[in-house]
Amino acid sequence: SQSSTDSERVVSDWITLNVGGRHFTTSRGTILAKEPLSMLARMFAEDNNVYLMNPSATDSTGAYLIDRSPDYFEPILNYLRHGDVILDKHINPKGVLEEAVFYGIDSMIPHLNQLIEESTSASSSNHCLT
Amino acid sequence: SQSSTDSERVVSDWITLNVGGRHFTTSRGTILAKEPLSMLARMFAEDNNVYLMNPSATDSTGAYLIDRSPDYFEPILNYLRHGDVILDKHINPKGVLEEAVFYGIDSMIPHLNQLIEESTSASSSNHCLT
Amino acid sequence: SQSSTDSERVVSDWITLNVGGRHFTTSRGTILAKEPLSMLARMFAEDNNVYLMNPSATDSTGAYLIDRSPDYFEPILNYLRHGDVILDKHINPKGVLEEAVFYGIDSMIPHLNQLIEESTSASSSNHCLT
Amino acid sequence: SQSSTDSERVVSDWITLNVGGRHFTTSRGTILAKEPLSMLARMFAEDNNVYLMNPSATDSTGAYLIDRSPDYFEPILNYLRHGDVILDKHINPKGVLEEAVFYGIDSMIPHLNQLIEESTSASSSNHCLT
Amino acid sequence: SQSSTDSERVVSDWITLNVGGRHFTTSRGTILAKEPLSMLARMFAEDNNVYLMNPSATDSTGAYLIDRSPDYFEPILNYLRHGDVILDKHINPKGVLEEAVFYGIDSMIPHLNQLIEESTSASSSNHCLT
Repeated sequence: SQSSTDSERVVSDWITLNVGGRHFTTSRGTILAKEPLSMLARMFAEDNNVYLMNPSATDSTGAYLIDRSPDYFEPILNYLRHGDVILDKHINPKGVLEEAVFYGIDSMIPHLNQLIEESTSASSSNHCLT
Repeated sequence: SQSSTDSERVVSDWITLNVGGRHFTTSRGTILAKEPLSMLARMFAEDNNVYLMNPSATDSTGAYLIDRSPDYFEPILNYLRHGDVILDKHINPKGVLEEAVFYGIDSMIPHLNQLIEESTSASSSNHCLT
Repeated sequence: SQSSTDSERVVSDWITLNVGGRHFTTSRGTILAKEPLSMLARMFAEDNNVYLMNPSATDSTGAYLIDRSPDYFEPILNYLRHGDVILDKHINPKGVLEEAVFYGIDSMIPHLNQLIEESTSASSSNHCLT
Repeated sequence: SQSSTDSERVVSDWITLNVGGRHFTTSRGTILAKEPLSMLARMFAEDNNVYLMNPSATDSTGAYLIDRSPDYFEPILNYLRHGDVILDKHINPKGVLEEAVFYGIDSMIPHLNQLIEESTSASSSNHCLT
Repeated sequence: SQSSTDSERVVSDWITLNVGGRHFTTSRGTILAKEPLSMLARMFAEDNNVYLMNPSATDSTGAYLIDRSPDYFEPILNYLRHGDVILDKHINPKGVLEEAVFYGIDSMIPHLNQLIEESTSASSSNHCLT
């Protein structure tokens, strides 16, 4: 279609997300490949080089605005990059689970539930009630 | 009213807060929905598409200035987003409690008091005095 | 006085400090109220809407330059905001003590000394030498 | 060659990488010296003062875009600087291993596998099942 | 000398360092006073208000570029400010030692070696093998 409307955006290979105030730079391939039916992937799906849905508003630098936690988004984006669920020791897995549910990254959810269970049983045995 | 004055600001769906020097981007919906009577919600309530009260001064980027801790605000904003109180392991729940009281997010307070109690008893049993 | 000189700065209610390279935004009220005789308060005291002493150099954004640690300044600024000494678990209280002494926030010092003592005894009993 | 094409970039001694949204500044020497055959080194290898391959797209500040985790890249860049594998206590060594494999820094991999093994056995003995 | 050359820079009291991509603001006094013969001090020594050696390249904001870890530089800069070696609990002292050796801050090295030894013996007794 030659007449470009507001809802049509030219597809870019590099995408910057403004998640709750912090910038994450990734590629459209990372967002689409692992879970193509997730809400996040559908935000950036395209047809004939035009986004199918207007993903969201953008900030002054052109980053797409998402009203969610930046800290707990980081392990989700890493999962989309390489397929492993990896959390640092101080990160609460419940926070990551909330985001996986929000973005619709369903294949992460069983892994996160297992981490939550392990962290609960570890913290109770940490009490050293011998 | 057609004659716009300084105390009337056009309502925007996306709001950036400068909390103690760090920027948080969220939506007016997140700020208003969970605790509509909180001080934070009343800062951004609107009538006929105009803010009822001038929320606060803004910095050079248009972010609303709030003179409070950024670190302890993060779990509060996440709570307004999804309704769960989730803290990383190194975060002192007393710091989050101070902010919940300041912003008037009353429904968080019993949860935070419970986390403070648990963290106190855990740290004393951590001493392993068998 | 009508003839404004370099050493006279118009007093602003919002102040941004560049502490060791990180920006902290706060209000003059927070800096002055809790410990009016501290070195930090005297930097921003005013007479007839003009600062009594030129606080320090400013960076290109107008933030006042302070050659100290940003990480350990954060709990000090929070203390000036609400009056409680709150440290996250990974923060070394000795680092905060250095800054409290530097800025002259004398009322924090006994609290910090107690936290240092507790952290020393906790870490030795953590060794679990049963 | 006098006719400069798009695929030829003048080699700079200082290189800024935009890894997943965070900027890292380093030198071409650091990237090339330790593992000259790694994927990272080959991105910035040069012949006659021109890059052999176009490393990747750049952001608006001229930083080279890499679609990977910033947190786990930091110990890798430090390793290229001084040759030691050093991780903070809260960092999950599995996250660093993913990046070492991605960038092709093969000499880090045995060290990281050892750290993963140690962290697994430490966390199980931490349970204090006396 | 009246004819100013490129290798002569006017001495400024405030110095911003770009260490591995993060900005640290400090004063020439802090860099010079504690260890005047260190490599870092010699970078910013001056004669007749001109730097004796061109310290390093600068980024677009005028910050001096240093190709090293930012995280482990922070305790070193604090040491130059007040003379105490203070590390947070999650910081690996081996990482700080690498930087102290690089910058030539020799008086920190015995303190850091002691912290490394303590952290090794603490982590083995943490295993609670009663």
